[in-house]
Amino acid sequence: MKSMKLNIPDTQAFLMVSESEHNADMYYASGFLAYDSFVYLNSGEDLILISDMELGRARKESKVHDIIPTSGFNIMDKVRKTGDVDTAYCEMITELIRSKNLNRIAVPYNFPVHLADCLRGAGLEIIPIKSPLREIREIKNEDEIRAIEYAQRAAEKALSEGIRAIKNADVKDGVLMHENSPLKTQDIRAIIDRSLLAFNCEAPDIIIACGRGSSDPHWKGEGELLADQPIVIDMVPRSKKERYYSDMTRTVMHGTPSKELTDMYSAVLDSQSCALKKIKAGVTGADIHNIVCDVLEERGYKTARGKNTEFTEGFIHSTGHGVGLDIHEGPNLGENGKELKAGCVVTVEPGLYYKKIGGVRLEDVVVVTRGGCNNLTMFEKNLVL
Amino acid sequence: MKSMKLNIPDTQAFLMVSESEHNADMYYASGFLAYDSFVYLNSGEDLILISDMELGRARKESKVHDIIPTSGFNIMDKVRKTGDVDTAYCEMITELIRSKNLNRIAVPYNFPVHLADCLRGAGLEIIPIKSPLREIREIKNEDEIRAIEYAQRAAEKALSEGIRAIKNADVKDGVLMHENSPLKTQDIRAIIDRSLLAFNCEAPDIIIACGRGSSDPHWKGEGELLADQPIVIDMVPRSKKERYYSDMTRTVMHGTPSKELTDMYSAVLDSQSCALKKIKAGVTGADIHNIVCDVLEERGYKTARGKNTEFTEGFIHSTGHGVGLDIHEGPNLGENGKELKAGCVVTVEPGLYYKKIGGVRLEDVVVVTRGGCNNLTMFEKNLVL
Repeated sequence: MKSMKLNIPDTQAFLMVSESEHNADMYYASGFLAYDSFVYLNSGEDLILISDMELGRARKESKVHDIIPTSGFNIMDKVRKTGDVDTAYCEMITELIRSKNLNRIAVPYNFPVHLADCLRGAGLEIIPIKSPLREIREIKNEDEIRAIEYAQRAAEKALSEGIRAIKNADVKDGVLMHENSPLKTQDIRAIIDRSLLAFNCEAPDIIIACGRGSSDPHWKGEGELLADQPIVIDMVPRSKKERYYSDMTRTVMHGTPSKELTDMYSAVLDSQSCALKKIKAGVTGADIHNIVCDVLEERGYKTARGKNTEFTEGFIHSTGHGVGLDIHEGPNLGENGKELKAGCVVTVEPGLYYKKIGGVRLEDVVVVTRGGCNNLTMFEKNLVL
Repeated sequence: MKSMKLNIPDTQAFLMVSESEHNADMYYASGFLAYDSFVYLNSGEDLILISDMELGRARKESKVHDIIPTSGFNIMDKVRKTGDVDTAYCEMITELIRSKNLNRIAVPYNFPVHLADCLRGAGLEIIPIKSPLREIREIKNEDEIRAIEYAQRAAEKALSEGIRAIKNADVKDGVLMHENSPLKTQDIRAIIDRSLLAFNCEAPDIIIACGRGSSDPHWKGEGELLADQPIVIDMVPRSKKERYYSDMTRTVMHGTPSKELTDMYSAVLDSQSCALKKIKAGVTGADIHNIVCDVLEERGYKTARGKNTEFTEGFIHSTGHGVGLDIHEGPNLGENGKELKAGCVVTVEPGLYYKKIGGVRLEDVVVVTRGGCNNLTMFEKNLVL
């Protein structure tokens, strides 16, 4: 196994202390999934310092070669002497760093402040840097893209089943019905969940937002589904095994849309098409966001671009974000978006939101290439079912 | 809505900056679920500072009364001027704190070091403290206990279905078979996942570890299930709606156990029974852990108690931990375990692990009461099915 090369100028090593279930940098660097905190240190060679109980598994599963047990630094003695796990942990890490003759240590921005203070108190220089792993993680290799695509295919299968239930519903007094009972968001969520599970995939917090509530882009949705109202379905599927997320949104309706909503849908769809045509390595996330804003503003919709005051109707979010081990990661497709590189996997998700009408959002996931982009999303875009 | 009272001596406020999907303190304090970072500040009154896009949802869903949009601090202007989101965010938080005439601010141990450095650079005192929320979270109210119990009931229903498949399997050349195909860990996992979903529950990373591999307490398990070998099944179910975890483990076998394994099972079961009898408000986690170690050592098994050198066979972990919004939270039932209080919900999970034999673990979840404990786990304990 080769140690991961990190670009950490002016420091001697890169240190992370975290669990890896929710810290994607830690999982990416170690290849080891753990609910409890452990230590990752990279000074050219990388190593893991981990509790004895995790030792066997770490040696089998981690991609890091050098796995050291905390007993090697007498952790339990330190806990007994100090009476405090955090103090003991800090002493242990200090000893580890000293044993490597290191002093000037880079840590990620989100490194815990208490541990940083404690290490500084022991005489070490602790320099927060933008995580070099986040930058590496922005560029996906073939395996990672395959994992995202797998989740996306599962999501589309699941979504098609959910949407079929909406399409096949009856209508009574404006409410969608299935076998004489109101069809509810939780019914559709259950259909999607079950379908995802058959592919060993899951999607936390699926948004199924119907009616005016859909004007809130992150409202999860609840209750009965309505005819003639927009239904925004947004899901972040991932394979439980591979752990890479995809991300997709469709807006659908059972019934007849108002002129306002049809116009909104058409504007969002066109803004997305224009953005997708322009994405390629070398353009910036800001360029793509500007294209979306241009199209929407030309159609008379307001966007958050350039705004400073409270802004809650129109195009109120950025155009997209990277997706991978985290649901939201770099690069950003917004006002501040930097250059897109080949291998980036990003969402393109324009939307329009009005409190009295509801929301429309369309979201695809694409791989940035030298000449353009490869759209991983194949699902149809039709407002009316 | 009343602001949460926090015990933060010698400081004027408690500050957290985090997402709340994985940061349970943030979710507990705000009652608001968000994948993206926001600000929680408690100076007697509490407030949330959050992006305009989340404003509507936060005002509806959060239990905090005072919800401020980031546009109120001209966040986009700051991003444009500084060219850096992190710097802009720090300036905004500094302004927020200054606007409240605060200077000496407590933050949790895991507060991001970069932001702490930046706030300190702006002249604020930033004092890391053990999160007062973690202490509050250790004591569960009735709603929280009900949520844990709901997940536990769902888990037991699911486990009974998984175990039935193991019990009903045929055996061919030592491998468990179902309809002429080997029965695999992933088959049992799928049965459990599907059953949990019917209760709107989920369990990440279910352990189904068979044979010698089960000597690693956190090995997830894979491949064919074997006759006459221990199968350790450990799951952390939670309701997707309520978000509270439970935690349970059973060790079962299809076939005939060796004398060694029968003895291990009996010792683990007895150590757990003794521990369960002694748990009540006022005893310490260390007391309970010592009872388990005493019983196991009396039976001739080694435990990690008092050990300093690498220790990977015998009873190699602590006796238990609190469970709630996090899978692992306080209080700890280990060498360093503090006093247990009424309303704590803790696991009691002794285990024995030998590389040439495999593992045995039994885990119940109990609510600590004044006079003893209320065991939320009803599932039978039988090694041989």
